[in-house]
Amino acid sequence: MRAVVVGGGSWGTAFAALLRERGHEVTLACRDAAQAAAIAESGRNPRYLRGVDLSGIRAATIESAPIAEASLVVVAVPSAAFASVVAGLPGTAPLLSLTKGLDPATGVRLSTLVRGRPAAVLSGPNIADEIGRGLPAAAVVACDDAALALELQRAITSPGFRVYVNDDVVGVELCAAAKNVIALAAGAADGLGLGDNAKAALVTRGLAEMGRLAEVAGGRPETFAGLAGMGDLVVTCWSASGRNRRAGELIAQGTAPAQAAAQIGTVVEGLTTAPLLRDLAHRLEVEMPITEGVCAVLGGLPLTDLVASLMRREPTAE
Amino acid sequence: MRAVVVGGGSWGTAFAALLRERGHEVTLACRDAAQAAAIAESGRNPRYLRGVDLSGIRAATIESAPIAEASLVVVAVPSAAFASVVAGLPGTAPLLSLTKGLDPATGVRLSTLVRGRPAAVLSGPNIADEIGRGLPAAAVVACDDAALALELQRAITSPGFRVYVNDDVVGVELCAAAKNVIALAAGAADGLGLGDNAKAALVTRGLAEMGRLAEVAGGRPETFAGLAGMGDLVVTCWSASGRNRRAGELIAQGTAPAQAAAQIGTVVEGLTTAPLLRDLAHRLEVEMPITEGVCAVLGGLPLTDLVASLMRREPTAE
Repeated sequence: MRAVVVGGGSWGTAFAALLRERGHEVTLACRDAAQAAAIAESGRNPRYLRGVDLSGIRAATIESAPIAEASLVVVAVPSAAFASVVAGLPGTAPLLSLTKGLDPATGVRLSTLVRGRPAAVLSGPNIADEIGRGLPAAAVVACDDAALALELQRAITSPGFRVYVNDDVVGVELCAAAKNVIALAAGAADGLGLGDNAKAALVTRGLAEMGRLAEVAGGRPETFAGLAGMGDLVVTCWSASGRNRRAGELIAQGTAPAQAAAQIGTVVEGLTTAPLLRDLAHRLEVEMPITEGVCAVLGGLPLTDLVASLMRREPTAE
Repeated sequence: MRAVVVGGGSWGTAFAALLRERGHEVTLACRDAAQAAAIAESGRNPRYLRGVDLSGIRAATIESAPIAEASLVVVAVPSAAFASVVAGLPGTAPLLSLTKGLDPATGVRLSTLVRGRPAAVLSGPNIADEIGRGLPAAAVVACDDAALALELQRAITSPGFRVYVNDDVVGVELCAAAKNVIALAAGAADGLGLGDNAKAALVTRGLAEMGRLAEVAGGRPETFAGLAGMGDLVVTCWSASGRNRRAGELIAQGTAPAQAAAQIGTVVEGLTTAPLLRDLAHRLEVEMPITEGVCAVLGGLPLTDLVASLMRREPTAE
């Protein structure tokens, strides 16, 4: 397979190496020309996962990458860049999205922005840093076209990276977006020193609200309980290297959201996604109290006031 | 309320303090007379949660505790002692079980051993150490009698310990037993250094097999997705102080199971529960591959052989 991975962040970098390991001809297409040149010269990504050997992978800018001739285009750019990047891609090869978020301009699921080619999404508990170090992981590929999903499964699965197929694109994509928002809240629980019991209760309620949203939007309950739902959520909320968790922790400790993102130094998708997710929940009339709380705190509500008001609510039936 | 908490382990100790905080008259009944005497003298449990102030709580042996006059008997003994302890309890007051496991002699759920009084079970992400330190947590109380469940909810809920009611005794009790077995496997993933991605995938599949078993046994899917299912499972698999997780980690690093339990120094319920759970799964014809794997390793199969055979399986649909 001739694959172009668009996006030279940590997940794009690790995924390019996974495809190379499977014997595919891989180009890593960066938005930044200097980064592409540095990768081409050194065989390493100077900004992300420097430990990953990229030899055998061609590096290029998006404009110069052989996208029109590719048999697969993988997109791993931040959600804020997704619309403009996919709008400019040549050719008609299938597109596999690794991006977790919603379109900031319209609030829609990212795969719905893909025109003139089939689209699939890949999601799961996939901390890029671990995959770059060769540690095993599993993911789901979701696609309306079952034959394409099977083809992608065969092309990507390796002994260390197991791909399961799933036909619930809506559920997979909404879980992928929402889990970053719940991770901000889980990180805030860490920052407040509330302990793992409280964090586990919060994350459990977080999965419940992710599930309610995805189900009203047309997703399947099995998806929230699977790798792209619970699996990705728990790793995002407990892994020490999770950026969204870390951002929530910093915010709970008094850092302003914009400063927290700057301190982490990479895109913190949950900060972009939270208000989009809340608006989607309002449109679909789904209750998402944790997402509402995250938005209130990002809007300036003191976190201690939020926690106090949540603890005053009467518990009912589960 | 006059409550007797039977079992002076860490959870019994922390729970006695929770009830005392709610203004109840509490006796902590220990199986060990010397331990009861030490608590009565010092106001501290010499063996567990030494940091927890037990002043105002009466300590006694099980034989001398005012169980016949109690309005609630809470049982927090190891699963291996549950049957004999509840068989000898006087009076007819409701019994609330905090014990997570199955009866070793018969493999049945522990609450089914309670005779001559109503039974309820409490479960959730409740690492005792954190609760002893006053950190917030939430739990569910499950009971066939809805009025008793509501009464227990009112009697136990406090600002820092929120109790939700649930009518699915079967689901709550089976999740509580099974999560310790999955935690052994999650700890083994830690011991092998597989990373959080692989552990999250394992725990996700673990919840799926817990859910299959509980559903065939008559439980409800909402329970596995809730505090007593996912919530308790994730905290048991990620908290550094989880005994079952730690036992799995030690076993993966080459320690024999019996030695791992001895090194941890308290009961490791998953070691007792694993073969009982496997037998129950066989009787109900439910596939539980992670539980089978745990039993195989506890029976002497080298863990590396098990991991290799699991990684060779073809991934399918999720």
